[in-house]
Amino acid sequence: MQMNNCVIGIDIGGTTTSLGFVDRHGTLTCETTLDTLADQPAEILVSRLCESIDKLSKALPPQVAISGIGIGAPNANYLRGTVENPPNLNWGASTNLVELFRGRYNLPVAITNDANAAAIGELLFGGARGMKQAIVITLGTGLGSGFVVNGELLYGADGFAGELGHTTVDPAGRHCACGKQGCLETYVSATGICRTVSELLAQRLDPSCLREVSYSELTSKKIYEAACGGDSIALAAFDATARILGMKLADAVAHTSPEAIFLSGGLAAAGDLLIAPTRRYLNEFLFGPYKGKVKLLRSDLSESSGAILGAAALAWHEVGIATRP
Amino acid sequence: MQMNNCVIGIDIGGTTTSLGFVDRHGTLTCETTLDTLADQPAEILVSRLCESIDKLSKALPPQVAISGIGIGAPNANYLRGTVENPPNLNWGASTNLVELFRGRYNLPVAITNDANAAAIGELLFGGARGMKQAIVITLGTGLGSGFVVNGELLYGADGFAGELGHTTVDPAGRHCACGKQGCLETYVSATGICRTVSELLAQRLDPSCLREVSYSELTSKKIYEAACGGDSIALAAFDATARILGMKLADAVAHTSPEAIFLSGGLAAAGDLLIAPTRRYLNEFLFGPYKGKVKLLRSDLSESSGAILGAAALAWHEVGIATRP
Repeated sequence: MQMNNCVIGIDIGGTTTSLGFVDRHGTLTCETTLDTLADQPAEILVSRLCESIDKLSKALPPQVAISGIGIGAPNANYLRGTVENPPNLNWGASTNLVELFRGRYNLPVAITNDANAAAIGELLFGGARGMKQAIVITLGTGLGSGFVVNGELLYGADGFAGELGHTTVDPAGRHCACGKQGCLETYVSATGICRTVSELLAQRLDPSCLREVSYSELTSKKIYEAACGGDSIALAAFDATARILGMKLADAVAHTSPEAIFLSGGLAAAGDLLIAPTRRYLNEFLFGPYKGKVKLLRSDLSESSGAILGAAALAWHEVGIATRP
Repeated sequence: MQMNNCVIGIDIGGTTTSLGFVDRHGTLTCETTLDTLADQPAEILVSRLCESIDKLSKALPPQVAISGIGIGAPNANYLRGTVENPPNLNWGASTNLVELFRGRYNLPVAITNDANAAAIGELLFGGARGMKQAIVITLGTGLGSGFVVNGELLYGADGFAGELGHTTVDPAGRHCACGKQGCLETYVSATGICRTVSELLAQRLDPSCLREVSYSELTSKKIYEAACGGDSIALAAFDATARILGMKLADAVAHTSPEAIFLSGGLAAAGDLLIAPTRRYLNEFLFGPYKGKVKLLRSDLSESSGAILGAAALAWHEVGIATRP
């Protein structure tokens, strides 16, 4: 029997790809990052990742074996093992990354999208340990979500369950990159809160330091800093974001009745500027039987390593040897 | 080994309670109805139901055994076996119907709400046979829903998953009996479409036979008949109902990614007056990866026996001896 086995977690982003070795307790033992080189074919990235893996593997103690590979990537389909029409990667309609890695290593390999990886990371290594029903929301440039149902990540009929970012807030609302209007992520995300500030600057007369920042230069970080300084436009933007998020999370509760909802990602780092009012609005919009029964929590997995841990958790799940503490 | 065993399906409504004996193929072999007598304690109804069961049992052939009891009831909680604060029954905060029946019969007994029973009926005996992921919507006085996830009915953390009727269409919208505003069932249900007609009569100038009907006398059946006669207000009401239903079903798809959605109940009997435009709007609001992949179907279980079949399907599920054809 081999001790201290680990899996490889890979997080593929539009700019940077990270990989690390993670043991079954969620300890990240070594880690590296590569430029994704998004304009080149997927095979090039896979070759470069394999080089990194082989190099890092040599540094492992001899008794440590690699048990599997988990990948988080945009537009990844777990059931098919593919990345499909990724918006920020020049990879075309469908790339079977699982097959590409299986051609190199005789190991279990699985892939899922970033938000699903975050959810399975939360389930294995984070605050959702031991929970059977949970929702994980990632608030970055967009809004991703992963649903844990009966202790397992929910993939649905087509492998694409958990796309809360594209539920409708207002059918005549903001244009979304997906082609629809009024999608949740056009309001609740790092870019969504910038759009909200732009609207509020037009609608209200309050003085605000954000009136000096162009639309293109506006970031959720600048809004956060303004809010911390008491800027009323920035504070109103967080409140408006929380209200829409609370309303749609109440809808999500009415679908699957989770024990808890976890917020992760860049915008969740705003902490109680966002989470406290979201909790209040969520409870306001919840249907009676759910009121007071659903926890809204910030993910305690670190933002930087959370994506690798999520991909690693997927690998452990596939390996089937994960033991939850 | 006993042949031709059956279960008892009981559907408790605010006015009428139905019960029947159902075999494992979904054949309803005998059936009876009782007045619910909603102002009397639950124990009285249980006693009267047991009398009916005992009487009907005597008519069964000697080789037929009763294997279990399934109950569909408003505000029923599967996990706790209770009916909690039923709006149309004078039963108080919580009544454990499962215990009451287990005190009388040495059989597996289970209870769930009407919509969940409809969903499990669809799964065992209806169009969802063989499906792993499906949603069943019941359109009656209110809007109920049941989710099938990975081949099982979804109960969630608290036993109350699947309450689409109380997701929010418009936070400043119509008042709902649940205390919130703008709930889906205030728009999409037999009562919802009456409210929509009342709004359209105020907003538009079209002549309509519905202008001669008082608000209290308006029914979804009268609206259906007017629509069949080409009444433009009635037709617009069906279209408005379909648009809101299509939009919220697209949200539901983004949560759990079902293979199909089934519509059942009184309003679904309007058939293609409702279902065809709902299908069009659903596809319009669906997020790209789901477009064209989700079937919207009318339940083919008869409205009159569907509720008993659903309760019976729950019983077969509990008995654990259901074999799906």
